[in-house]
Amino acid sequence: MQFDTIAAISTPMGEGAIAIVRLSGQEAIKIANKLFHGVSGKQLKDVPTHTIHYGHLIDPKTGQTVEEVMVSVMKAPKTFTKEDIVEINCHGGMVSVNRVLQLVLNNGARLAEPGEFTKRAFLNGRIDLSQAEAVIDLIRAKTDRAMNVALSQMEGRLSKLIKKLRQEILEILAHIEVNIDYPEYDDVEEMTHHILIEKALYIRSEIERLLKTSQQGKILREGLSTVIIGRPNVGKSSLLNSLIQENKAIVTDIPGTTRDVIEEYVNIRGVPLRLIDTAGIRETEDIVERIGVEKSRQVLTKADLILLVLNFSDELTEEDEKLFAAVAGMDVIVIINKTDLKQKIDLDKVHKLANGHKIVSTSLLLDKGVDELEEAIAALFFEGSLESADMTYVSNTRHVALLNQALTAINEAIQGVESGTPIDIVQIDLTRTWELLGEIIGESVHESLIDQLFSQFCLGK
Amino acid sequence: MQFDTIAAISTPMGEGAIAIVRLSGQEAIKIANKLFHGVSGKQLKDVPTHTIHYGHLIDPKTGQTVEEVMVSVMKAPKTFTKEDIVEINCHGGMVSVNRVLQLVLNNGARLAEPGEFTKRAFLNGRIDLSQAEAVIDLIRAKTDRAMNVALSQMEGRLSKLIKKLRQEILEILAHIEVNIDYPEYDDVEEMTHHILIEKALYIRSEIERLLKTSQQGKILREGLSTVIIGRPNVGKSSLLNSLIQENKAIVTDIPGTTRDVIEEYVNIRGVPLRLIDTAGIRETEDIVERIGVEKSRQVLTKADLILLVLNFSDELTEEDEKLFAAVAGMDVIVIINKTDLKQKIDLDKVHKLANGHKIVSTSLLLDKGVDELEEAIAALFFEGSLESADMTYVSNTRHVALLNQALTAINEAIQGVESGTPIDIVQIDLTRTWELLGEIIGESVHESLIDQLFSQFCLGK
Repeated sequence: MQFDTIAAISTPMGEGAIAIVRLSGQEAIKIANKLFHGVSGKQLKDVPTHTIHYGHLIDPKTGQTVEEVMVSVMKAPKTFTKEDIVEINCHGGMVSVNRVLQLVLNNGARLAEPGEFTKRAFLNGRIDLSQAEAVIDLIRAKTDRAMNVALSQMEGRLSKLIKKLRQEILEILAHIEVNIDYPEYDDVEEMTHHILIEKALYIRSEIERLLKTSQQGKILREGLSTVIIGRPNVGKSSLLNSLIQENKAIVTDIPGTTRDVIEEYVNIRGVPLRLIDTAGIRETEDIVERIGVEKSRQVLTKADLILLVLNFSDELTEEDEKLFAAVAGMDVIVIINKTDLKQKIDLDKVHKLANGHKIVSTSLLLDKGVDELEEAIAALFFEGSLESADMTYVSNTRHVALLNQALTAINEAIQGVESGTPIDIVQIDLTRTWELLGEIIGESVHESLIDQLFSQFCLGK
Repeated sequence: MQFDTIAAISTPMGEGAIAIVRLSGQEAIKIANKLFHGVSGKQLKDVPTHTIHYGHLIDPKTGQTVEEVMVSVMKAPKTFTKEDIVEINCHGGMVSVNRVLQLVLNNGARLAEPGEFTKRAFLNGRIDLSQAEAVIDLIRAKTDRAMNVALSQMEGRLSKLIKKLRQEILEILAHIEVNIDYPEYDDVEEMTHHILIEKALYIRSEIERLLKTSQQGKILREGLSTVIIGRPNVGKSSLLNSLIQENKAIVTDIPGTTRDVIEEYVNIRGVPLRLIDTAGIRETEDIVERIGVEKSRQVLTKADLILLVLNFSDELTEEDEKLFAAVAGMDVIVIINKTDLKQKIDLDKVHKLANGHKIVSTSLLLDKGVDELEEAIAALFFEGSLESADMTYVSNTRHVALLNQALTAINEAIQGVESGTPIDIVQIDLTRTWELLGEIIGESVHESLIDQLFSQFCLGK
């Protein structure tokens, strides 16, 4: 396909050593050629593909030098977008990179929309939709494991699986066609039923297997939202600091909100914990008082994991019991802290209140028990199954929804066959399953969906 | 010179489309070659210089794919550092880029110190010290004008000027040598005096000319620290918002301090205003109450520009007068806001209090007078002289200090000649001037200074 030429800043904003302005499209090389004055005197339009050139960008209107740059020229089709790509590496810094962008925009390029480069890679057939979606996950990955999942998805592992399932469905559909076209052969019909049930059950089991990975996939992708609760002075801040110190935290501003809301990601054995309201914990110890407040309750119910901290050297209070009650039915790890002090807590009562939840004893002061706590967190959500890097995970909500719909459709097909529904009704359910799986990899999807998907990307990708 | 191989992330941290890990040194290509598996099967060690290669990084220990990458190979000496350079472009995102960095560090590279790439460019003689320093300014530039100053300095305009002056001094010194070696020739001595005075005066005038640009250069480089003051409800927040809205603000965290301290840069006609305590202004209007506090006074005295806001529709109060008193002797622009309302203010009294400072009338509600205010700000510090992009500015504090010392030395030389001081004493002063100018471009500087200078850089540059 032929598109106009787009340009965007492809490196994160901020002060850095290098920034990149990327161009893609038919005119990319022509535009760069007009602006670039190489020290060697070479013209960019004449250089071989995949080569790098040093020189200056000069504004053709003013004759002024805009920047000292290294320009990479990559010619179609062996590029990220399958179009001509020019990458202008300039000195990092807001003004510098914006100037370069402005210059290429003034000379024929159009500002790219978020994700438009990847969208072109998709539209030009270099990658399918699930691979394109993996690109976002790759950028947003908070742990190594999440990164591996995204990487394997981008390499097309999920795509291959989905394509294989669709192929199987096509084969069943072919058998059904034979049956409809030659109804006079009785043995064909029987064979069809036999094969149909077998194949349909196999497809269902594969869809179910994929769906089973989705909870873990989602956690890897988005992090476990985690809330630390406990009475004042039980050691919530110490716990937070201990988790952060041992597992370097990544702090992220939530886009679109005020700067006060900060997410902190801590990598616990490959599981990204998204610590909620950590600023609050650090500043005060009054979360108990706030527990009555509706807003705090909402935070609790949205959490994937509750770390409930008790004081080993103090008796259980009514407040502690209220906390247990507030998190009933959730994933909770109970932490009995301050084991370096004299015991006053009634452990039997704790076990009763914990009601089967994992209990870990710690002395955060002496740095004891943190390892065990981290193991408990990892075990609670992964039970060691994540160790194999080779697994195919479904982590994307869109994919999960489509797989669930496909499961429903294939179930209806199976029930149909079993209850003797006319074969052309079964055919509709199977076709629907085939289409739903197709949407995952971007075959038969609406343009609006594509637009919406790519708009989640950052600029310049 | 031969150095070990260094590596660093050269793009800003954060989510972005592309991130770069840069390697420089003898082993750069060898290390990359070990990790890189190109789709074409080519070995990086065999490729021509300045070429780009697509493939995957595979950890040789685990055999696992670490990232999908584009690798640029640039061989010495035509590179930024004059050493072999490999740039690994990977998908943006914290985990992705850190993984790539970790991989190259595990395979023989050493983590670069801040500025170490530029330092090598300097040590290997590709750029001189003033050009290296311009690289930081380029990255930190907050406006187009600041960027132009840095760019011209990096292109060596300042270096050329300094080298020319040093050459002139060398010629004088040569004349003096003649005079000392052949004291019997009376006519030589007279010529020496004549030439000496003339040349020394020329050198002094050039140093003075450079120093004159330094105040503007410093403003361009660091921004005008600006404080908005005024009684409650005169419109300080409106003024702030109006300046920010019309001139997109760049928000910067001050490194090393808490997240609460935010600097906001607003580009007013090429002059970067660094707005101080803007968060405070936005949240409350009680800066007047805080004016008595020592800390606020300190902020005031450090400001380069005070914007004092008055209310057109209210009578002047004792508080207003106190504000005028607090900023006496500083650069102040008086803003009479709310001209859309009925006048109650005594303009004669305002003029008297303003005591020669520029007065601008605005109605921020109706968006009137903001243009005039911006002109007043630009005029106060530049008086139009900045329009020529071709000027050589001195903006670096280190350079200014050296130029001042050089000025003293040349003055002593001139006085010496005029008062008939023995010529070998004059010679000492001239040699000192020559050395001081040399330090600007990095000839005859201490290693500790070099280390300290480059440590101000960001990582990866």
